[in-house]
Amino acid sequence: MLRWEPDPGADPADLVYTFGGVGPVATLRPGELLSTWSLDCFGGRVTEVGHLASERCDPRFLNPQSGPFHIEGAAPGDAVAVHFVSITPRYGRGVSTTVPFFGALTSTPRTASLQPALPERTWVYELDVPAGVVRYDALDSRFTVDLPLDPMHGTVGVAPPLGEVRSSLTPGSWGGNMDTPEMRAGTTCYLRANVPGALLSLGDGHARQGEGETCGVAVECAMDTVLAVDLLPGMGPAWPRLEDDTHLMVVGSARPLEDAFRIAHAELVAWVAELTGLSLLDAYQLVSQAALTPIANVVDTDYSVVAKIRKDLLGSAAVMGGAHERLKSLGARA
Amino acid sequence: MLRWEPDPGADPADLVYTFGGVGPVATLRPGELLSTWSLDCFGGRVTEVGHLASERCDPRFLNPQSGPFHIEGAAPGDAVAVHFVSITPRYGRGVSTTVPFFGALTSTPRTASLQPALPERTWVYELDVPAGVVRYDALDSRFTVDLPLDPMHGTVGVAPPLGEVRSSLTPGSWGGNMDTPEMRAGTTCYLRANVPGALLSLGDGHARQGEGETCGVAVECAMDTVLAVDLLPGMGPAWPRLEDDTHLMVVGSARPLEDAFRIAHAELVAWVAELTGLSLLDAYQLVSQAALTPIANVVDTDYSVVAKIRKDLLGSAAVMGGAHERLKSLGARA
Amino acid sequence: MLRWEPDPGADPADLVYTFGGVGPVATLRPGELLSTWSLDCFGGRVTEVGHLASERCDPRFLNPQSGPFHIEGAAPGDAVAVHFVSITPRYGRGVSTTVPFFGALTSTPRTASLQPALPERTWVYELDVPAGVVRYDALDSRFTVDLPLDPMHGTVGVAPPLGEVRSSLTPGSWGGNMDTPEMRAGTTCYLRANVPGALLSLGDGHARQGEGETCGVAVECAMDTVLAVDLLPGMGPAWPRLEDDTHLMVVGSARPLEDAFRIAHAELVAWVAELTGLSLLDAYQLVSQAALTPIANVVDTDYSVVAKIRKDLLGSAAVMGGAHERLKSLGARA
Amino acid sequence: MLRWEPDPGADPADLVYTFGGVGPVATLRPGELLSTWSLDCFGGRVTEVGHLASERCDPRFLNPQSGPFHIEGAAPGDAVAVHFVSITPRYGRGVSTTVPFFGALTSTPRTASLQPALPERTWVYELDVPAGVVRYDALDSRFTVDLPLDPMHGTVGVAPPLGEVRSSLTPGSWGGNMDTPEMRAGTTCYLRANVPGALLSLGDGHARQGEGETCGVAVECAMDTVLAVDLLPGMGPAWPRLEDDTHLMVVGSARPLEDAFRIAHAELVAWVAELTGLSLLDAYQLVSQAALTPIANVVDTDYSVVAKIRKDLLGSAAVMGGAHERLKSLGARA
Repeated sequence: MLRWEPDPGADPADLVYTFGGVGPVATLRPGELLSTWSLDCFGGRVTEVGHLASERCDPRFLNPQSGPFHIEGAAPGDAVAVHFVSITPRYGRGVSTTVPFFGALTSTPRTASLQPALPERTWVYELDVPAGVVRYDALDSRFTVDLPLDPMHGTVGVAPPLGEVRSSLTPGSWGGNMDTPEMRAGTTCYLRANVPGALLSLGDGHARQGEGETCGVAVECAMDTVLAVDLLPGMGPAWPRLEDDTHLMVVGSARPLEDAFRIAHAELVAWVAELTGLSLLDAYQLVSQAALTPIANVVDTDYSVVAKIRKDLLGSAAVMGGAHERLKSLGARA
Repeated sequence: MLRWEPDPGADPADLVYTFGGVGPVATLRPGELLSTWSLDCFGGRVTEVGHLASERCDPRFLNPQSGPFHIEGAAPGDAVAVHFVSITPRYGRGVSTTVPFFGALTSTPRTASLQPALPERTWVYELDVPAGVVRYDALDSRFTVDLPLDPMHGTVGVAPPLGEVRSSLTPGSWGGNMDTPEMRAGTTCYLRANVPGALLSLGDGHARQGEGETCGVAVECAMDTVLAVDLLPGMGPAWPRLEDDTHLMVVGSARPLEDAFRIAHAELVAWVAELTGLSLLDAYQLVSQAALTPIANVVDTDYSVVAKIRKDLLGSAAVMGGAHERLKSLGARA
Repeated sequence: MLRWEPDPGADPADLVYTFGGVGPVATLRPGELLSTWSLDCFGGRVTEVGHLASERCDPRFLNPQSGPFHIEGAAPGDAVAVHFVSITPRYGRGVSTTVPFFGALTSTPRTASLQPALPERTWVYELDVPAGVVRYDALDSRFTVDLPLDPMHGTVGVAPPLGEVRSSLTPGSWGGNMDTPEMRAGTTCYLRANVPGALLSLGDGHARQGEGETCGVAVECAMDTVLAVDLLPGMGPAWPRLEDDTHLMVVGSARPLEDAFRIAHAELVAWVAELTGLSLLDAYQLVSQAALTPIANVVDTDYSVVAKIRKDLLGSAAVMGGAHERLKSLGARA
Repeated sequence: MLRWEPDPGADPADLVYTFGGVGPVATLRPGELLSTWSLDCFGGRVTEVGHLASERCDPRFLNPQSGPFHIEGAAPGDAVAVHFVSITPRYGRGVSTTVPFFGALTSTPRTASLQPALPERTWVYELDVPAGVVRYDALDSRFTVDLPLDPMHGTVGVAPPLGEVRSSLTPGSWGGNMDTPEMRAGTTCYLRANVPGALLSLGDGHARQGEGETCGVAVECAMDTVLAVDLLPGMGPAWPRLEDDTHLMVVGSARPLEDAFRIAHAELVAWVAELTGLSLLDAYQLVSQAALTPIANVVDTDYSVVAKIRKDLLGSAAVMGGAHERLKSLGARA
């Protein structure tokens, strides 16, 4: 098992905020486990109700990533399989905020209006990991309620194609800031390598989030994570695929939101056709009646939608070379 | 209990295809049960794999509605509560089709392209109601699989505001063709009356559908339905609200899809604030971490998104005057 | 020449605010001229800087239309050609306003946000028709500037298809609230009849507007209008076509805005192919290099885009049976 | 005057296809003229009707840029003013093509559908520079027509913010592939520097294009270009601004297209307020009545819209420190 840790005392300017454009911090071999942790999206600088991100964070230095890791042998076109063995909040609290002109229920620099911004506020959540609880406390009244802990990574990705370098605030075909609750322990994520070594990074831990991440900020927290990696030569998918014990999923990211839907469903239809031998129209029909489609985020620079289908509907064909089962076993032995 | 039946032998031109613009077929009193049934969206004219809707249906006469029913005493601004006591496929089969230039994975007359249409095909599903099964049979191979029966109404609505009359193919603030699987037995739907008597109609039965209704056509079937109606003076919501035993929901319909998301979430935030006494920003925060957001349809003239939240997170305030519990009891006694 | 006038003293509830759903006020024969006038979109109730539309207008009674006129002999599928002989502001002033949660640079009930509305303000413009000037006076400073007078109708349309009745605030395939500056004197507008008699209405006079009608309200004014009508059996276009002495145009209306663009360009490509004998791909190529594409509105319930091309690029084929030249001559003789 | 030339015989992999991520080829001083030329978007490899880009071009190597040029003294936040003194087709022909799954009237990898691609075809245009003519020849019939020559650069930009590197196929706040016909000789383009030296590049010459660049490819040609550069410390605009002798313009790029509209208009409103001393609402009102809004492109990875207003409406305040007049004089003396 490889162990790599970010430096929480580093100058913010020295951390990694992009997919691509940065050299690897370590090399990871297919079949190897990685134990690491990631700073929260604010770099740990917002921890109290009285803290405002706009005062404590440089907007150039948001959402630091752990990595990138060079995946040994990965070549453009290969699939990198990343199985999340465990994702656990590192500390006992998470934070969320409103961010001026960011989020789904405000105008933004793109969906521009002349209206003033919503107030900037910070909420602190107590995290009780053994009890599986995320405690919401209202700011303006005494209301409090326990929400289920459901830790996940908002961000996991590789270097993009076409020589691009993309901010860790952006999702796309390379993964990135997809912000889907499906990226939890037990899930395997398949990403297409675009450069030698793929350059895998991850971060943006969420103790939980609603579907859509409506205000733009989840229950953000530093996260302890163990993952297992495999390499599937030549099997790189056009868009990120996810697999857990019960479902296959595709994550599409685009604007407008219907294009994210179209990407995810077109890719899922093609995948179902490939696994079942169905014609494309037959697969389109089956997916139309059987798919679940939870929204991931409607706040990032592109929006993300998940199309998912139950594996037991699709017969017994091996999915992505059996990588999910293989990595799950690997994780279980750790 | 009122019993009303459509005439399956009627000339298609004599059925109802709009919300608004048509006089009531009967009057329903608040607290009364209605037993009715509805033709499928093709008016029962597509029943075999060899049937093509384009040959058997007049495009002016698609998606016939049962009703409208005059709700006694309903005035503009009131909420009409419609509780679905039971929704049961009337016959042993359902059908689905591809429709040229209709659906999420094709260009359409609005998302226009110069490409040719996808082929028009018809799938027939065997419905085994006691077993709770919808059987998918591929057209181009021998693949077959059982999907869970989950009967619902694609369409339920009232006359629109501003004197408009809208096609039964369109969803909006008046309900209409929302195509959400949440409109199943056990759900109460709250709609704002815009005209005296509200003029409630329903139809478009689906034995089941995937989230998004991707190809544009669910497993369409004639449906036997029992519902109970109540009237909540002055409580008409801006957009359709749903309630079942565990969740509150709002259905937003618009294009692009993110606007449907924004509508549903803005309304849910306001509803949560009202029920909990939370400030608007506190409610925004809570919904952001707790909401589920299944997509309803990405194929109709406007797209629909459901924002939903668990009732047990919101304390004990009475929801919509307790109508859901009251109508559920009424249905249980029937 | 037929003369018909609205009743400016009528109760607002007695005026016409929809396309479809209302019986004709008069019959117009093909080849006949109509002289009429239309109230401004506020029904003449906002005339001073101190007037707020929200205080003086009932939101159910905005944008009254003159008509509908029954076009003698018009059958579904026919084209109704409407040539604007003259469009002249009826009085010496026009008004514009901001409207809370309406316009392109604010959140709206569809592009919903939690932000407060922009302030509601009213601007009054002096109209000097002989000088061709619309005078802008700032509210918050002494700035003033003369803009060119360019009178037009925001709204012209017929009854919609599928039995729908649509608000005069909405554009679509039936015309309606397209809000394009191209609807000026000298332009011929071709609309597809959907019901017997077509039921033509017009209104929403603008002394001028910017492309996009960004704040949602143009320089609104009562308008004196003379138009000439013709009937082209079986030639009804799928979307509104415009013709003036130099250009052919198609108006597409949809959301998102790119769909309005796609509609307008797909229709223009087909029209160019038909007029020139070009293959569809050759016409696509020619339109791609030669089209102008002014935006009409980005504020109404659907957005409108105009695709236009110079007639002299297309050879000498007769356009829409020569109706533009014929009606222009008819108007010139009046 | 600095002279710099690309190497047309270079291996395609050795040319520049991104904004950012590449070191400068030369340094340009404020007040200096640059004489250069740029390869067409296909790198000169598509020149005959029988040539297919898919066979002759590597998709990783499309739209090569000339540059980047280090602007001496440019610091993040400064405005780089680029005045186009002359833009002249270098050779006597231009080409356009359809590209499978690229363009406004086809499904694409983002607006995904299951339909087949449109056929790939190539059109060759004869360019007669002295006569000012671009000759269109149909492929499938004998139709031919002369279009006006209107040379422009589809692409001009600087390194993006946030450490991103973006493909030359993408437009954004850094400029890039905006594809607006307004980028012609006589126009000054103001871009915000995001890195020391700004790193200015340009390319993608078009002999002309329609507004929207509907099929995705203009009349592409190698281009001889002379430009003059100035530096305006601290005046970097949020989005690209353009100025010619008569108009001020802002280019917004985003999806959906209405967001490009919103960006361009919100920036123009702010700019007008700044130049005239108008309040924001007064400027919003004036822009709403006076703006022109030609669409630039509806085909690139983000869409671009231009909002423009006549300078003579805005009084006599100096625009961007008078850079346009200064650079125009500089160019005239060359």
